[in-house]
Amino acid sequence: MNSERSFSVLIYGAGGMVGGELLRIITGHPRFKIAGAVSARKVGKPLAMIHPHLRHACPDTVFISPEAARDTPADIAFTSLPHGSASESVAEILLRGIPVVDLSADFRLKDLGRYERWYGGPHPRPDILDVAVYGLPELHRKELPGASIVSGVGCNAAASILALYPFARSGLIKEALLDVRAGSSEGGSKANQGSHHPYRSRALRIVEPFSHRHLAEVSQELSLPEENLTMRLTAVENVRGVQVCAEIFLHEHLREADLWKLFREYYAEEPFVDLCPARPMHLRFPDPRLVTGSNRVLIGFSTTGKGARCLVVVALDNLMKGSAGSAVQSANVVLGIPETTGLLMHPVYPV
Amino acid sequence: MNSERSFSVLIYGAGGMVGGELLRIITGHPRFKIAGAVSARKVGKPLAMIHPHLRHACPDTVFISPEAARDTPADIAFTSLPHGSASESVAEILLRGIPVVDLSADFRLKDLGRYERWYGGPHPRPDILDVAVYGLPELHRKELPGASIVSGVGCNAAASILALYPFARSGLIKEALLDVRAGSSEGGSKANQGSHHPYRSRALRIVEPFSHRHLAEVSQELSLPEENLTMRLTAVENVRGVQVCAEIFLHEHLREADLWKLFREYYAEEPFVDLCPARPMHLRFPDPRLVTGSNRVLIGFSTTGKGARCLVVVALDNLMKGSAGSAVQSANVVLGIPETTGLLMHPVYPV
Amino acid sequence: MNSERSFSVLIYGAGGMVGGELLRIITGHPRFKIAGAVSARKVGKPLAMIHPHLRHACPDTVFISPEAARDTPADIAFTSLPHGSASESVAEILLRGIPVVDLSADFRLKDLGRYERWYGGPHPRPDILDVAVYGLPELHRKELPGASIVSGVGCNAAASILALYPFARSGLIKEALLDVRAGSSEGGSKANQGSHHPYRSRALRIVEPFSHRHLAEVSQELSLPEENLTMRLTAVENVRGVQVCAEIFLHEHLREADLWKLFREYYAEEPFVDLCPARPMHLRFPDPRLVTGSNRVLIGFSTTGKGARCLVVVALDNLMKGSAGSAVQSANVVLGIPETTGLLMHPVYPV
Amino acid sequence: MNSERSFSVLIYGAGGMVGGELLRIITGHPRFKIAGAVSARKVGKPLAMIHPHLRHACPDTVFISPEAARDTPADIAFTSLPHGSASESVAEILLRGIPVVDLSADFRLKDLGRYERWYGGPHPRPDILDVAVYGLPELHRKELPGASIVSGVGCNAAASILALYPFARSGLIKEALLDVRAGSSEGGSKANQGSHHPYRSRALRIVEPFSHRHLAEVSQELSLPEENLTMRLTAVENVRGVQVCAEIFLHEHLREADLWKLFREYYAEEPFVDLCPARPMHLRFPDPRLVTGSNRVLIGFSTTGKGARCLVVVALDNLMKGSAGSAVQSANVVLGIPETTGLLMHPVYPV
Repeated sequence: MNSERSFSVLIYGAGGMVGGELLRIITGHPRFKIAGAVSARKVGKPLAMIHPHLRHACPDTVFISPEAARDTPADIAFTSLPHGSASESVAEILLRGIPVVDLSADFRLKDLGRYERWYGGPHPRPDILDVAVYGLPELHRKELPGASIVSGVGCNAAASILALYPFARSGLIKEALLDVRAGSSEGGSKANQGSHHPYRSRALRIVEPFSHRHLAEVSQELSLPEENLTMRLTAVENVRGVQVCAEIFLHEHLREADLWKLFREYYAEEPFVDLCPARPMHLRFPDPRLVTGSNRVLIGFSTTGKGARCLVVVALDNLMKGSAGSAVQSANVVLGIPETTGLLMHPVYPV
Repeated sequence: MNSERSFSVLIYGAGGMVGGELLRIITGHPRFKIAGAVSARKVGKPLAMIHPHLRHACPDTVFISPEAARDTPADIAFTSLPHGSASESVAEILLRGIPVVDLSADFRLKDLGRYERWYGGPHPRPDILDVAVYGLPELHRKELPGASIVSGVGCNAAASILALYPFARSGLIKEALLDVRAGSSEGGSKANQGSHHPYRSRALRIVEPFSHRHLAEVSQELSLPEENLTMRLTAVENVRGVQVCAEIFLHEHLREADLWKLFREYYAEEPFVDLCPARPMHLRFPDPRLVTGSNRVLIGFSTTGKGARCLVVVALDNLMKGSAGSAVQSANVVLGIPETTGLLMHPVYPV
Repeated sequence: MNSERSFSVLIYGAGGMVGGELLRIITGHPRFKIAGAVSARKVGKPLAMIHPHLRHACPDTVFISPEAARDTPADIAFTSLPHGSASESVAEILLRGIPVVDLSADFRLKDLGRYERWYGGPHPRPDILDVAVYGLPELHRKELPGASIVSGVGCNAAASILALYPFARSGLIKEALLDVRAGSSEGGSKANQGSHHPYRSRALRIVEPFSHRHLAEVSQELSLPEENLTMRLTAVENVRGVQVCAEIFLHEHLREADLWKLFREYYAEEPFVDLCPARPMHLRFPDPRLVTGSNRVLIGFSTTGKGARCLVVVALDNLMKGSAGSAVQSANVVLGIPETTGLLMHPVYPV
Repeated sequence: MNSERSFSVLIYGAGGMVGGELLRIITGHPRFKIAGAVSARKVGKPLAMIHPHLRHACPDTVFISPEAARDTPADIAFTSLPHGSASESVAEILLRGIPVVDLSADFRLKDLGRYERWYGGPHPRPDILDVAVYGLPELHRKELPGASIVSGVGCNAAASILALYPFARSGLIKEALLDVRAGSSEGGSKANQGSHHPYRSRALRIVEPFSHRHLAEVSQELSLPEENLTMRLTAVENVRGVQVCAEIFLHEHLREADLWKLFREYYAEEPFVDLCPARPMHLRFPDPRLVTGSNRVLIGFSTTGKGARCLVVVALDNLMKGSAGSAVQSANVVLGIPETTGLLMHPVYPV
């Protein structure tokens, strides 16, 4: 029924880095048109001044204020606002009857206690938390159609969840060590002393040894106790891209063929997930460079040959599948249009 | 009349880096379908083994031999073969009545003497040289429809030509110093000692101080004497991207407004060329990072305030507008379909 | 007479990036010992917290305040403070009878009018400006012994001056186009939006098209009119290193052999300057990577074969020969100890 | 007794990357002088052509042949030759009564069976294998004086051994997962398809998931069964530097204070090893950038708070402490001169 209809889209926080990625996707999306690019701080400025790579796509668009956005009709909204402050905007948009895909962390964790523990304070809007669907279609596709709030995913969480999902659903995981390597775009568009190029360039900076926040999402989504998970985060030279190396201690010994069966069972039908071939060796475990700019996920795996343990490596583009891409993918499902619409751009390689 | 027809495409040299870029474009092109990916050395190997970022796009395709290609019907062919050896293949394909876009340097220079001087030997197929159209639609759009051979452009040449074009056509150029900064993908997919990562990484390597080969194309296309041009080529850290800084000594003094008029006159209607704004200052001169993965060209300029001299800076993606992108753009014109078809992917930024 | 004596050194602004480089040199300098590492903002903090690469060298040192420094006897002081505010500190130290090497821009320009024009305001201490010697020993070696103020050099200026010096002294320069490529450490230790890694990484950012400030130093030191010089500054991926490509239009035609004679005449005896060989070609023009971490300067050159014009390329480490290295080299001369003392570390390559 | 004597040094394989690093150290070593830089392939070529960063240090030196080396008296030799072929040269030099530090893998493993298993063939010279001392002074200082063969260390092995050593000696290790991140210089000076810049740049390439060869050295040196160790090797963007993240499962629970006690016990007196402070957090785990160009090792650690497990992170420069630096350090001990002679250069940071 929605076959030819176009949907108007409001983007809040359109001046940030994820905002830019949403604009890149949506200006190329055949069913979406931008109703307003909202930015409280950049009102009146041309979009092209902040996102100069999109000048040709929106030569005349300027940022509008949240107030102006209030008077702008829209079919769906994306909010890419700071953690904590996003939920008020979400609530407000919701009251206007517009479904929201929120890319902050505000609606990711369902348990208020868990939220408080990881985000250091009470949830700002517990009243609407229940409504939110975690926006990873690979896990929640059936709950998305018609949802009023979709929570965007944590990029490291998304990659980790996809690494562990088949094992977790099969009750196989005893313990998992998640080694996450993240590019600098994960930190967004705002500079800080740690992102200063002379210090950040070529860094191998262990930002968090055991318990990165996104671990909480992994635990929730896979129903795995937090104590059976660690997540070490290393900031690496790349700008884009997340690579997760999951060392998984299993409850039982699996052979190579068992792994293939397991992964195929869960991902064979997934439009954005590819399994890496066992050969040639240099392509067995995926490099995030192979998915740059796309919504794709690559997964490679192997048993250790040392008891009930295996290695799963996942690569995705943190701004795409790890954020704006999954958000649009979810929005497509919410609106009842084909899930891959506007998301079929190929990776750019080599860059 | 071609409004809905699909065209079948043969890609020779599909195992190389430009071949990979052609595949990326063409697998996303709504009017092209791949008839065969030809590679003499990789016959029978899956495409995804060589171009792992395209596994999802061609999961089952394998490379075919030039012999097999001979029996494969096609509407158009792209040849991305080594300089010198390409022309024989081009001639052969032509005999089958298939128009060819050749991405080697074989058909770029029209003057046999000039070819010999710059490429160090007689032209292998002078008999078909005249037929070729230089595949930069911004200069040769009208000659392209129905052409039987289109010559791909040199990436450094393309950027340089676009920098000087409005001045050259207006007879304004006394002398131009072209300072070209090129990424490592310019050298293609084959490793050599100079491309070894420990030595090539973060290089500022002056490969050629005055007379890079592509200067010959600039001279030809703009009818400027070679002695009024120098081209210095520096290999920089980037993988993708060319930036040309053209210091132009003019026959007459131009003001800022004159430059704007001149550039608008030549490029206002060009679908892939954008002029950078005068403000803010940091966006005035384009960085190739702003066009990564796209067919776009950015041009920024300024007068020196010191006599009849100006600076023009051009940025493009060497594998796209500097090679495969312009090739497909030209092919679209040759076949009579809208020029931008399949080439509207936005730049990916930041990467 | 100074053959075995040790000199005590005060370093002001020791918490910055140039401060760190001074510490690296001075903690390895056989004749210097640190009397105090001064930082108004970091008083009491361990040096190793700010310069973690030097933990082993000064495990117990903490930053002292400018007030504490006032009571600390010293033989010489280095001031690495912000432009404009440095001169007051310099004046104060001078009053205590301690010679100062100032690494800010405050004492570089001798002409008050020129200073005002380039730094946008009147000079804060014109009374002591005359005393300062420009700290490039290659030009001012004879004026340095016993100097009370030595001005540090601008890194881009130092490289440019060394490129043009032999020509300028011989009255050969008609016009010079200086194309400077600079790493991110040129901006010091403080983060800003432009140095944010996702945007700064792999940049080819033209920061200044014609008239970078350091041009004023070049003009002054070589007695060349500013109108005959342009300086274009491009920020490149590197952290360390400056490369200057000087396109020089000469008053008379010079042959290759003339260039060699000229450069040998000026630099054969210089302890830190090396001329690049004409062969092999890939080593003819120097890459700043070849001097990383050292006080060395590499110079390569060639005639164009197109009239009276040549290309000179200079590479140096901006934090060393372009700043802290030249400062210590000058200090050595001021104090009458061998000029190369503490500065003989080899470049680290490849990095 | 050796207090003022100088030692003459032969360097075999002086044209390679480790050869270059040996030359960098030795040309700055106050007690060593180069008797000959040997390279079978580069005989007669100037050293500066292959190691252009050392032109100033050896302007007139040319490579000599192995035959010429035979007639060159020397006090010690370093051999940096390909694995497998090194041992014949070592044997020959030994017969001349010259002690050898061999930087290949030929003399690292003591057990012939283990050698065969990991290097795929019988050991070429089992007759002299017993003589060799593993050249990591932190473990073998007492066996080095007067040794006739010293085996250089594997860079990943050295970092891993230093991470595990205090635990292993205390019998605490149940299992260790070594996550090694290595720069491109680990592969030496010869180009290959995998080191081609467009593909290697910014890679996160998992070269080996579980069992990198260097694991065998770790097992041997620490008397840990191979089955209790895995070593995953990821090739990262850096040129220099190794970072090992060792996740250690312990036989008993250790508190933070226990770790400090353990590490201080083993490393407090080590001249090249520093422990990272617990605060500030961003310096707790070391980045290899902090040791670039130096012989230093940084170690940081933490307990997980999740049972008997801890994380130890080691950073070193693979060409220095991981190769040429440890080799010279060992040679100093062999010859009875102070262990740190010639190795006190500070790290260059930031680069």
